[in-house]
Amino acid sequence: MSDLKSDFARHISSEFNEELEELCADLMKMGGLAERQVRLAVQCQESFDSALVEQIRSAENSVNAWEIRIDELVESVIARRQPTASDLRLVLVVSKIVRDLERAGDEANKVALMAQQAHEAGRNSTVGMVEVRAIGEQVIRLLGDSLTSFARLDVDMALDIARRDKEVDRIYQSALRSLATFMIEDPREIGHVLNVMWVLRALERVGDHATNIAEHVIYLVKGTDVRHLSVTNVEETLKNS
Amino acid sequence: MSDLKSDFARHISSEFNEELEELCADLMKMGGLAERQVRLAVQCQESFDSALVEQIRSAENSVNAWEIRIDELVESVIARRQPTASDLRLVLVVSKIVRDLERAGDEANKVALMAQQAHEAGRNSTVGMVEVRAIGEQVIRLLGDSLTSFARLDVDMALDIARRDKEVDRIYQSALRSLATFMIEDPREIGHVLNVMWVLRALERVGDHATNIAEHVIYLVKGTDVRHLSVTNVEETLKNS
Repeated sequence: MSDLKSDFARHISSEFNEELEELCADLMKMGGLAERQVRLAVQCQESFDSALVEQIRSAENSVNAWEIRIDELVESVIARRQPTASDLRLVLVVSKIVRDLERAGDEANKVALMAQQAHEAGRNSTVGMVEVRAIGEQVIRLLGDSLTSFARLDVDMALDIARRDKEVDRIYQSALRSLATFMIEDPREIGHVLNVMWVLRALERVGDHATNIAEHVIYLVKGTDVRHLSVTNVEETLKNS
Repeated sequence: MSDLKSDFARHISSEFNEELEELCADLMKMGGLAERQVRLAVQCQESFDSALVEQIRSAENSVNAWEIRIDELVESVIARRQPTASDLRLVLVVSKIVRDLERAGDEANKVALMAQQAHEAGRNSTVGMVEVRAIGEQVIRLLGDSLTSFARLDVDMALDIARRDKEVDRIYQSALRSLATFMIEDPREIGHVLNVMWVLRALERVGDHATNIAEHVIYLVKGTDVRHLSVTNVEETLKNS
């Protein structure tokens, strides 16, 4: 971690450093918006409000605009500054994280859309809401923490995110099983339960994006590509690096 | 299109040009593997064969290894060659496409896993198989064509992919509706139908990744970022560009 930080310190007070800082600050702003999108979407599931849907849509537009803007900045920083080593890696990782944030926002949008559909169909069943709230809260925290791990270049925090996401996956799988059983017992609820399943699926994906971001942070700091490794393997790999 | 091609022609016979060509060739190899993964996964749904599952898993490992290798190449090309303008754009687009290919492969893996689960549960219902085959064939073609549109820098082909993916989305939504109706009529089939729904969902996502790749191709050739625009808007934007 200290290597990377001292690398960045090299540029202090230079224009280049300001540009890198701007890039990271933009990414954090975009991340804050995506996180807000997910939070509002879960809120929408708990109690529907069309004003919330509007806010989510407007955040979605901003997130999309940020994605394009940050990608342009990435291209322009590389073209003008010709970064190498850890600076280049930072810039490339930012362009990867941007994609995951945009996708997390997309999932939030789907969750809001499904709340709207349920509302319009006049459904007010609370089946599955405990699971939506539980998984929703966890992935919102995962997404926020993944951004913090980037801001602090905190590998331990990033590793912890991958671990916690495994737990979310377990809760998600068990929720799907009990919802399927519920469907069989009460087929009148099939429409509602399907809707809840798609919501849980979208939220679970947000957790995956948080984990992707955490993996990019580990790569950025350690220079080790940990995508496609299990959590245990990642810990082993880092121990030996 | 001609601009980009003449830009690349500038480097002919230079080492840099060879590296760019290697990068594109690697991407096409990875794409071929991801496409094969999806094809085998759909085959697995039609008639289960554990040897196929093994092949898919092995392709998955190769696809993951390619993702890391190509990303490393992207970093090394930028660091050593300091590309600008359309060369830089090409390299950055390759690193974006790689991600979509890897995700498409992930979806194929899920489809194979669900075929295995259905097989192990002793299910042999054919409900939904027409839809799985229809959507499967379409997204396999979309993915293949998205790679061809990249290889040929063919914007018209890329635009057509976005259009065809909209059609896949319509078929998918209508399949979900009829499957939900089927569940209500025959609750004993709930487990099987849920499995089919997840399969369709995964295949539909493959179509989305093909569209993302097509959008990257349009950006590469036209310099216009068409992500987050509807097909009609993209056509308008390109007409005016």
